[in-house]
Amino acid sequence: MSVTSRLQDIAAVGRDASSGGYRRLAWTDADLTLREWFAGEAAALGLDLEVDRNGNMWAWWGDSSAGDAVITGSHLDSVPDGGNFDGPLGVASALEAVAELKRRGVQPRRPLAVVCFTDEEGGRFGVACIGSRLFAGVLAPERALALRDGDGITFAEALAAAGRDPRALGAEPDRLARIGAFVELHIEQGRGLVDMDAAIGVGTEVLPHGRWRVDITGQPNHAGTTLIADRRDPMMGLAVLIDSARREAAERDSVVRAARATVGKVQCTPNAVNAIPARVTGWLDARAHDEATLDAMLEAIGRDLLHLPGLQAQIQVESRTPAQVFTPALSAALSHLFGDAPMLATGAGHDAGVLAEVGVPSAMLFVRNPTGVSHSPDEFTEDTDCETGGAALADALAHLLTAETLPR
Amino acid sequence: MSVTSRLQDIAAVGRDASSGGYRRLAWTDADLTLREWFAGEAAALGLDLEVDRNGNMWAWWGDSSAGDAVITGSHLDSVPDGGNFDGPLGVASALEAVAELKRRGVQPRRPLAVVCFTDEEGGRFGVACIGSRLFAGVLAPERALALRDGDGITFAEALAAAGRDPRALGAEPDRLARIGAFVELHIEQGRGLVDMDAAIGVGTEVLPHGRWRVDITGQPNHAGTTLIADRRDPMMGLAVLIDSARREAAERDSVVRAARATVGKVQCTPNAVNAIPARVTGWLDARAHDEATLDAMLEAIGRDLLHLPGLQAQIQVESRTPAQVFTPALSAALSHLFGDAPMLATGAGHDAGVLAEVGVPSAMLFVRNPTGVSHSPDEFTEDTDCETGGAALADALAHLLTAETLPR
Repeated sequence: MSVTSRLQDIAAVGRDASSGGYRRLAWTDADLTLREWFAGEAAALGLDLEVDRNGNMWAWWGDSSAGDAVITGSHLDSVPDGGNFDGPLGVASALEAVAELKRRGVQPRRPLAVVCFTDEEGGRFGVACIGSRLFAGVLAPERALALRDGDGITFAEALAAAGRDPRALGAEPDRLARIGAFVELHIEQGRGLVDMDAAIGVGTEVLPHGRWRVDITGQPNHAGTTLIADRRDPMMGLAVLIDSARREAAERDSVVRAARATVGKVQCTPNAVNAIPARVTGWLDARAHDEATLDAMLEAIGRDLLHLPGLQAQIQVESRTPAQVFTPALSAALSHLFGDAPMLATGAGHDAGVLAEVGVPSAMLFVRNPTGVSHSPDEFTEDTDCETGGAALADALAHLLTAETLPR
Repeated sequence: MSVTSRLQDIAAVGRDASSGGYRRLAWTDADLTLREWFAGEAAALGLDLEVDRNGNMWAWWGDSSAGDAVITGSHLDSVPDGGNFDGPLGVASALEAVAELKRRGVQPRRPLAVVCFTDEEGGRFGVACIGSRLFAGVLAPERALALRDGDGITFAEALAAAGRDPRALGAEPDRLARIGAFVELHIEQGRGLVDMDAAIGVGTEVLPHGRWRVDITGQPNHAGTTLIADRRDPMMGLAVLIDSARREAAERDSVVRAARATVGKVQCTPNAVNAIPARVTGWLDARAHDEATLDAMLEAIGRDLLHLPGLQAQIQVESRTPAQVFTPALSAALSHLFGDAPMLATGAGHDAGVLAEVGVPSAMLFVRNPTGVSHSPDEFTEDTDCETGGAALADALAHLLTAETLPR
């Protein structure tokens, strides 16, 4: 087996024939198939599977009730039309690393688990990292259960349909306290490692980021009969939002100091060809290398939306996450272990960021992405880099499992 | 009874409690309720109901098999979140006018029918005037049957669910040939009559118009990690389309010489907050006082979309309708009858335009709209203007039913 052969095993699951992308949304059939695959792989490696209250899966080598556990893994769900690496690469590498450790005859001082966190992408219910946030106690079960997907199905209903008890959800402080180190391997989602000519790198932090909902209302009217001069067309406000987000981010963005703003989701009411809309909603995703830059971008975009002629724009924060800094001692130890691998921040959210936020020693290992493309059917990593990543993870785990003490 | 009391009878049907607008899409429960209401009103007036192959309803006073019939009416369906006047005002006025003719003891020389055309708005299946186009033979049944609504239900399935035989659809040349005159009363969908200080006016033509679908494709990617400089974000193309349509129309538009362009419908794939989209589609609705102006607008908008950096834009015509000129002799006779009522063109499509296109003598009677707003919950007409319109229609019908010959 190898990392790539493990990925190949699931390459057909949830794949959309027309786009070539993956639709592995949480608790759908595709997701359930992947969960079964993971259970089978864990069994084949002789690991003991535990599913926690929130549906996260933990495959244990050693005593899960002992402390100082070394955890590795990622997630298996995807965004709509995502690729086969974002998430699964971390899970496949973790499984392969455990196989490698067993081949090497490593004798662990402490337990290890491969974890699959559920619903990392938020592609179905709109909130990212649901599984790890519930587990860590930073998302209230009531809030999660009331979330709805695009078809109006609540998270509670989706759980019940998948045979899980929605009342079981909740924080697991004891299990959390037993984690001594969490290392998540992930495809890089930018071109940082390409620029640095390195196959792997170590994450330093998840950049501060947030989501804002911008509702623009005007005067619904007939598209054929309303004088242009009389219109209060909220679509004009959407154009301002799109242009403003791009301009404000472009002014501040660079490879070393990120500033990103994106309108990736829109909703128009009534969305009829021959009707000037009543309301257009655009969702703004923004991230930056520091809080001040993020605030400055948001303020500038807000100013552009303040005086749209004849329109009202209302901006609501849907989520705002400060920088999640990975554990410096752990990150440094990994970088050193990999021959001083480069260290870099990421603009994407991760379960490792959630755990770092609540004080779990956490680190990330990134694998080079030749185009930087992710969340897309075109997402890609070279096979050799996948295996390099898997081998590096095995080295890291061997070190953490056998070291006298864990880096804190 | 009065025109407004008849409208009041159906004011609750298909009304959305939150928006206050109407959702009377073709062959939905709301539409079926309105069809039953119409059958009841026709029976109460002693009219004989016939439903043609395409579901259009004809309530006859006199022998439907005789020629030279005088037809009046409109439609009962609405756009999503439309008002209670666009369509129903013409039906209610027609019913009230027949009641008035009977009160006056008018002795018709020729048969009369009140017609309800089905699915005028195209709010469900995306094609306007389906009922009258099928009837007139300008829309092929196979094409209509294959149309799908937003839930993926075909027109054929919707007909079957409403208890109708989809195989029955088709042109009715004999019935068409027996129409001597069609007069459709409709709320004005602009401020023309307000500017002319007139309660009613007579239509001259439906302006040339069309619908274009603009597909903009780029490179789907991660919203948080992709450098702004690396992006090929199709949302940027949508902003160009929105701005270009507005600018090109505004340059050419005036009260007397219309030029309108609108982006009222958008679709984004995958439409996820944290994803740079793969594709954004905007639908362009454009109309103008003459074909050359319409062409010039479209060419200019197309030029703006030609060189979007890193993006491809594909423009497809979904429909294109030349000017539909109402029968000049009939329009002139009506204007004269109403004390030289003003004559004006309309930017909206109508069943009367479809019939005019295939040579049926057709005319329209517009009722003042104080704000010009339509296709909106805010659509409104004063009660007194509704009754003025109904009385004028009764006068027109009395004239047409008793004149020695019909104006051609």
